[in-house]
Amino acid sequence: MKFYDCHVAPNPRRARMFLAEKGIELEKIEIDILGGENLGDDFLAINPRGLLPVLELDDGTRIDEVMAICRYFEELQPEPAMFGRDLREKAIITSRQRKMEFDGMISSSEVFRNQNEQFCKRSIPGGGKDDIPAIPALIDRGQQTLDRFFWWLESYLEEGPYLAGEYFTMVDITAICAVDFAAWSDIHIPEANIRTKSWYEIISARPSAEA
Amino acid sequence: MKFYDCHVAPNPRRARMFLAEKGIELEKIEIDILGGENLGDDFLAINPRGLLPVLELDDGTRIDEVMAICRYFEELQPEPAMFGRDLREKAIITSRQRKMEFDGMISSSEVFRNQNEQFCKRSIPGGGKDDIPAIPALIDRGQQTLDRFFWWLESYLEEGPYLAGEYFTMVDITAICAVDFAAWSDIHIPEANIRTKSWYEIISARPSAEA
Repeated sequence: MKFYDCHVAPNPRRARMFLAEKGIELEKIEIDILGGENLGDDFLAINPRGLLPVLELDDGTRIDEVMAICRYFEELQPEPAMFGRDLREKAIITSRQRKMEFDGMISSSEVFRNQNEQFCKRSIPGGGKDDIPAIPALIDRGQQTLDRFFWWLESYLEEGPYLAGEYFTMVDITAICAVDFAAWSDIHIPEANIRTKSWYEIISARPSAEA
Repeated sequence: MKFYDCHVAPNPRRARMFLAEKGIELEKIEIDILGGENLGDDFLAINPRGLLPVLELDDGTRIDEVMAICRYFEELQPEPAMFGRDLREKAIITSRQRKMEFDGMISSSEVFRNQNEQFCKRSIPGGGKDDIPAIPALIDRGQQTLDRFFWWLESYLEEGPYLAGEYFTMVDITAICAVDFAAWSDIHIPEANIRTKSWYEIISARPSAEA
């Protein structure tokens, strides 16, 4: 298997953290997003969306979408469980993971992409070479949605030390990647959110956070 | 178990189609979105996002997010398989389902919500009572992304009769719900996309499409 990666990008980081928690090592091929390699013909032949990460199976099948990649490895090597151990846990984790993704990752992306000159014609991820202009109003909407994201975090942490209860899961991975992505646009965990700030320190200290 | 539903809304329809394909019947509680019941205090106590569907388990746990609900039932009753039968199929289905969701459902939602007067202060789903104003530029961006969605459909159907190959899956469910949602904004399958038009007729004729 091969893993098409980009070290600076938030979505590949979710997969790298996940793989590190599982102790899975893969052959990695670094794609230089900042230099535009993801929009070059070679990489567009691998993923027409120009997005990372992509997993290439030994039979040549290519899987994009970070959640598809993580779920693949969750089934291949179930321990430690990152998506829950029973039906109820799995449902809660899937639901919360998606909130972290929509309200955290996607909002951070919209704030970042719509105010950053380098992305001024690439408002939406996965547009490839399409010309989708920046929409400044999405900066405000993204900031409002990130308020809600931070509210979710603090609420979940009232229930337990991790975002889905007693142990570390995919919810924590997506959330910390979103928190760090929001910081690119100078948006940070509100000072009053004491539980979230403490959670952030603990998760950041895990070896997988450096993966 | 109880299923909080809304007959006119596209996301609950995805769950209803899925349940119908599995032959699972649940107690359903209809919430009147058009009358604003989803943003009333009673329903916000059930789901603070004001979104449908919500599954309530017998122990009182509430699961929102349609994909969390569908995956719950996929594990509870694996046949007929809607998310794939082996690791490779599952990865392809998860990946394609997400494209149908992002490029199809979400784009349809953005086009609809940002040009419809009733939603002019509710640009983003799940904002509950938050005041997130409409962003007209999202109508154009959504239309461009729907072009890409229709391109995916036609490409996938070059490989087999259904969107993930030889049998009907969650990818087909999300896709047909997105096609019908786009039609609310008078956006339709391009005439040249002959495979997609034929697929649409076949999927629409399944009994689950009326669920």
